[in-house]
Amino acid sequence: MSIEFNQDRNYDIIAIGRACIDLNAAEYNRPMEETMTFTKYVGGSPANIAIGSSKLGLKAGFIGKIPNDQHGNFIKQYMSEVGIDTSNMVVDQEGHKAGLTFTEIKSPEECSILMYREDVADLYLNPDEVNEDYIKQSKILLVSGTALAKSPSREAVIKAVSLARKNDVKVIFELDYRPYTWASKEETAIYYSLIAEQSDVVIGTRDEYDMMENLEEGEGNNEATVNYLFNHSPELLVIKHGVDGSYAYTKSGDVYRGLAYKTQVLKTFGAGDSYASAFLYAIVNGKDIETALKFGSASAAIVVSKHSSSEAMPTVEEIESLIAQQG
Amino acid sequence: MSIEFNQDRNYDIIAIGRACIDLNAAEYNRPMEETMTFTKYVGGSPANIAIGSSKLGLKAGFIGKIPNDQHGNFIKQYMSEVGIDTSNMVVDQEGHKAGLTFTEIKSPEECSILMYREDVADLYLNPDEVNEDYIKQSKILLVSGTALAKSPSREAVIKAVSLARKNDVKVIFELDYRPYTWASKEETAIYYSLIAEQSDVVIGTRDEYDMMENLEEGEGNNEATVNYLFNHSPELLVIKHGVDGSYAYTKSGDVYRGLAYKTQVLKTFGAGDSYASAFLYAIVNGKDIETALKFGSASAAIVVSKHSSSEAMPTVEEIESLIAQQG
Amino acid sequence: MSIEFNQDRNYDIIAIGRACIDLNAAEYNRPMEETMTFTKYVGGSPANIAIGSSKLGLKAGFIGKIPNDQHGNFIKQYMSEVGIDTSNMVVDQEGHKAGLTFTEIKSPEECSILMYREDVADLYLNPDEVNEDYIKQSKILLVSGTALAKSPSREAVIKAVSLARKNDVKVIFELDYRPYTWASKEETAIYYSLIAEQSDVVIGTRDEYDMMENLEEGEGNNEATVNYLFNHSPELLVIKHGVDGSYAYTKSGDVYRGLAYKTQVLKTFGAGDSYASAFLYAIVNGKDIETALKFGSASAAIVVSKHSSSEAMPTVEEIESLIAQQG
Amino acid sequence: MSIEFNQDRNYDIIAIGRACIDLNAAEYNRPMEETMTFTKYVGGSPANIAIGSSKLGLKAGFIGKIPNDQHGNFIKQYMSEVGIDTSNMVVDQEGHKAGLTFTEIKSPEECSILMYREDVADLYLNPDEVNEDYIKQSKILLVSGTALAKSPSREAVIKAVSLARKNDVKVIFELDYRPYTWASKEETAIYYSLIAEQSDVVIGTRDEYDMMENLEEGEGNNEATVNYLFNHSPELLVIKHGVDGSYAYTKSGDVYRGLAYKTQVLKTFGAGDSYASAFLYAIVNGKDIETALKFGSASAAIVVSKHSSSEAMPTVEEIESLIAQQG
Repeated sequence: MSIEFNQDRNYDIIAIGRACIDLNAAEYNRPMEETMTFTKYVGGSPANIAIGSSKLGLKAGFIGKIPNDQHGNFIKQYMSEVGIDTSNMVVDQEGHKAGLTFTEIKSPEECSILMYREDVADLYLNPDEVNEDYIKQSKILLVSGTALAKSPSREAVIKAVSLARKNDVKVIFELDYRPYTWASKEETAIYYSLIAEQSDVVIGTRDEYDMMENLEEGEGNNEATVNYLFNHSPELLVIKHGVDGSYAYTKSGDVYRGLAYKTQVLKTFGAGDSYASAFLYAIVNGKDIETALKFGSASAAIVVSKHSSSEAMPTVEEIESLIAQQG
Repeated sequence: MSIEFNQDRNYDIIAIGRACIDLNAAEYNRPMEETMTFTKYVGGSPANIAIGSSKLGLKAGFIGKIPNDQHGNFIKQYMSEVGIDTSNMVVDQEGHKAGLTFTEIKSPEECSILMYREDVADLYLNPDEVNEDYIKQSKILLVSGTALAKSPSREAVIKAVSLARKNDVKVIFELDYRPYTWASKEETAIYYSLIAEQSDVVIGTRDEYDMMENLEEGEGNNEATVNYLFNHSPELLVIKHGVDGSYAYTKSGDVYRGLAYKTQVLKTFGAGDSYASAFLYAIVNGKDIETALKFGSASAAIVVSKHSSSEAMPTVEEIESLIAQQG
Repeated sequence: MSIEFNQDRNYDIIAIGRACIDLNAAEYNRPMEETMTFTKYVGGSPANIAIGSSKLGLKAGFIGKIPNDQHGNFIKQYMSEVGIDTSNMVVDQEGHKAGLTFTEIKSPEECSILMYREDVADLYLNPDEVNEDYIKQSKILLVSGTALAKSPSREAVIKAVSLARKNDVKVIFELDYRPYTWASKEETAIYYSLIAEQSDVVIGTRDEYDMMENLEEGEGNNEATVNYLFNHSPELLVIKHGVDGSYAYTKSGDVYRGLAYKTQVLKTFGAGDSYASAFLYAIVNGKDIETALKFGSASAAIVVSKHSSSEAMPTVEEIESLIAQQG
Repeated sequence: MSIEFNQDRNYDIIAIGRACIDLNAAEYNRPMEETMTFTKYVGGSPANIAIGSSKLGLKAGFIGKIPNDQHGNFIKQYMSEVGIDTSNMVVDQEGHKAGLTFTEIKSPEECSILMYREDVADLYLNPDEVNEDYIKQSKILLVSGTALAKSPSREAVIKAVSLARKNDVKVIFELDYRPYTWASKEETAIYYSLIAEQSDVVIGTRDEYDMMENLEEGEGNNEATVNYLFNHSPELLVIKHGVDGSYAYTKSGDVYRGLAYKTQVLKTFGAGDSYASAFLYAIVNGKDIETALKFGSASAAIVVSKHSSSEAMPTVEEIESLIAQQG
């Protein structure tokens, strides 16, 4: 089975949501208190996916709000340089700042982050800054769950999804759950289900699906999730189980399993975004689901062995070479 | 055509949203500045509809949040006395107050209101205060648009609608647009369409449908509205055109027109709520759409000739007698 | 001892702070739940004091912010009609409403109130709406403690006090403590001491002085209070002990006691404001402290026997007649 | 003339206000967009002054609120290591973050900063976290103007100043004006004058005094400032005029001028804080005002030639050596 995309479009993928700044520990294998230098990268799940997709050759665009400062300039410039269309990235005029993520890399198993997400520019994207004329030029609208955390970004996303459905643009929902800025788990579940029910493809970890279903972590199971969501719009669900690999379910009843690739893990950040961009690259290029799962896993394996999430996004050759090595 | 309700239910209708206080000018035909005395009534569109329905003999329940003060006590007591089940009316524990509406009755044509809606208790209804076990006991969930204006009440309503759909409860959406507390027209349009698309019946004035479609007042037309909403869940739409009467459209393509009854107008408040309660009474009791339109109009004609919105709700006999007189 | 006022001034007193709406139970001796009618009056401590002073013949002015609605119009009109200069009452342009106080009169001993103070217009008075040219025309600046509860009204009052001191205007601080809108007792104590230390006269109940000193109710004593405040600007302190009467202390070491007058109590509201206006009337007119205490008590005795706080403010004749009767 | 300090105290100086994180461009002489690496330092005016004072040999303590995260840990650890007593640094329990300052060093003349000050921990210092027993152990309470920008930190500072005055602790007010987080210039002026009037020593640039006096930049003059503040508590005023040097005025009428030292400027950050710490060191050690002005200028000259504000704070030997060289 493969997803049918509308071929007559200028963009393969338009992502909507946050584009932020990562400040990654330059000295690692130590607590952040002892890290004295930080390296700056563009970050944020949908920005990373757009960057990853663009590096793989997809034609990507981005809808989001960036600050009117040096960090905002850097974000736009960087994304533009990797080939992303930034014409719909709006510059905030009210003094909101870029989200920041300081990473702490104590060891490959112990990574933590320190987030600055208070009143950040990306959550101030307004519905009237979402343009139908832009969205309808794309095969895919990629929605990041975090963009639903607060108004008015929440309404901007609800509007974007509505416009995508009206214009036959596939809605791909990356659950991308981050506890910051959500008022409660119940609120998260309400908006996650609302958008998941209206999406064509949903991608997330098992824990994120539990969140969407308002279950305690570990309470959910794939069968129930599949039964629930295939009663609505989705035709493909990807559920990731960490080191146990990932599963893809199709509405027609097929199940596929993808396995994780062996790699030298430096840190765990960026795994999900690199997975999503390679998976999307594969399905947009008409590859079958099994191959797409391999692309996702190979891409993730490459990124977790490197220092950044965005800068480290692999090329098609690197992915194919890893698949060729490990099968 | 008539709507099919699930007959095996304890309640005919459960309304969700605000129950507030009306303070109606005791001395009228003058500006409010000169009104020195105000009479207290229960108010708020969904509360009025529940009260009106109950007085007509429907079995009604209510989901909402009321303040922990004398006004909250009065609201609950009054609603209970007219026969409404108040077991799911939650008492606020955070000091929020009841919404207030002072009415000014300068003349039958010049009525205005002065609203207190800042941080009112009803907008603090939480999603976890909405119970599936309660909603599934009803034939109808009546949703008032104003309850969508702010979080967490907004999410409580989205959850209630989702539970109603899951449990075969008809969702009836009274648009009930009030500019207060909405952040913008665009935000209103986003949530109004979201809920309208998931409802079985939508009732509103032409202006309110324009708001839902994010159009300027007067820009919309019934044909476009009907085309849009019948692509989604609704099976019946009622669009009210003031003195020109109201139209009912069915998904099967029928159109009915209801005319306004002559009456001695004292003030215009309460017309919409009395209309909705009598219309719902009629369709729950299996009357045809034409008769339901007459019930709505007759009920409205009676209420606008009296001083209050809630207290003045008519009986079936009064409605039938007016219909018998004027046809 | 008597206070020396600058005689060369247009106004005897300019009050700063809130002017609101009282909605007094028209049917009383019952819980508010059973009160169906409310009578409207102007209310709010500094407004009442200005009204009371004006009815006694003082030339009064008012600095405050009122809503741009029917309640705001009524407040300004009423105050103007009793002779208060309203040229420095600013009309709010941001949709803030008048504060409301619903009174419940169960019995003379059991009175309670239900306040609407959320985002009210009076707390939005801006520092730049306080004019030096106005303040310097007065003998007295009367400051109400409640106006310190929130920014920007807090800063407007701090500025007004600073301008009064600069221009030899006596600052009279009515503590007027209301728990609503204050963030904490500690915050209250900080601003109450700040202003009390800069005032010439402080008037309050023993409980209010406890609040100013950040003590638990009942912990404070007059001696400590007097020692503390006479180290700063005040020259006269009035401390009220309810039915036990009131004490006046002067910086020169004199102590006076005033006794309460017998009266037929209807409700307790308005006692403090009527006390303050008659006390101020007396000291402005050069009466000695003992007589001023009698004026205050007599005025309070008259107001608590009547239905309103503002409308019921007595004339000089009524006060003198009561003093003549009871001594 | 020299300031008399209470000699019987455990601490020379206790500073109150913010302790934050500076992220200084590791690659400089370029716009921040092109800076890819940032070096972490402790920052924030009162923290820098405490660090500078401590490195000069004063016994310093600090009152402030730090986040419960890696940045908070680093701040406390660093300050403790340079010898500051951190027993009154409170760890925030509500998720507030450390303020951040990214510095951009385009050239010695073109330095700008990018601040993260939204809901930062330091502005959440509560009045009840300010302890009289601690403050009364110090000769000096150093107050930073920025700590007045928002409640509850504002009230914590007002309380600290009141406790200092009560306990014969000299209040030294570093105006330290930062536009961020202040609601308006008028609000700034109100709180700046309030605290300046209650201080013993005030230190600031001419522009900062203009802000305190609610004047446009450049409108103020030292004579008017001196006339105004010497009517209140201050006995010493330092007014800095950038490259034109600084002036010290004493209540007794003396005026001293200090000149700037020649140096190789790398960036302008940190000049004010290093000035204040060396000036305070000098006056605490009984040096005369002229010498104190030299200490301030020499310390500033050293810090602007180095990369950080805190880490670069000089020793007494370095300062004396520069004075010896340039006189």
